Amino acid sequence: MAARLKRDAHGLVPAIAQQYDTGEVLMLGWMDDEALHRTLTTGRCTYWSRSRQEYWVKGDTSGHVQHVKSVALDCDADTLLVKVDQVGAACHTGDRTCFDADVLPLAQ
Amino acid sequence: MAARLKRDAHGLVPAIAQQYDTGEVLMLGWMDDEALHRTLTTGRCTYWSRSRQEYWVKGDTSGHVQHVKSVALDCDADTLLVKVDQVGAACHTGDRTCFDADVLPLAQ
Repeated sequence: MAARLKRDAHGLVPAIAQQYDTGEVLMLGWMDDEALHRTLTTGRCTYWSRSRQEYWVKGDTSGHVQHVKSVALDCDADTLLVKVDQVGAACHTGDRTCFDADVLPLAQ
Repeated sequence: MAARLKRDAHGLVPAIAQQYDTGEVLMLGWMDDEALHRTLTTGRCTYWSRSRQEYWVKGDTSGHVQHVKSVALDCDADTLLVKVDQVGAACHTGDRTCFDADVLPLAQ
């Protein structure tokens, strides 16, 4: 499976985390092969932190754990969709999702 | 707004397209400043095609248009969530979403 994954120049693919029952898009993180392996085998969402350059088990510090329900690869094999059960807030700001605060104006 | 956007080395940010009413995650595309501007001002989702190196108005060839309902920037200003009304299939394979075909096995 790792052989099929099309990674970027940094060995990463974007991973969309979605609440499995409500459909809320919670956040986007990045995974390398090892983060994906850990996500699939531990049942806890694990990302690669680009800013800290380390693996990051979501919720280890905040308690806001993501329990993995399913993982799907897209048709181009370069994006992951991870359905999770999110404990508490997904966003470090305390918002439920990382997309709650900044809606852009449409000009139509 | 463009000043706030944190782009990658290629000037791009990932844009998650989500069906606005059902919550389905349809696909992930990439936008630069101009693609985002066109998306916000035309009401039609416009991406930058990394493979073809050109702007790509979703549905211009296939008819599978994405009508824009809302656009939000995430807390880090490096990811977009675009809620759309998708006409027909989002995926070039004919599947409704790009994540329908390839669910990965969990080992728990």
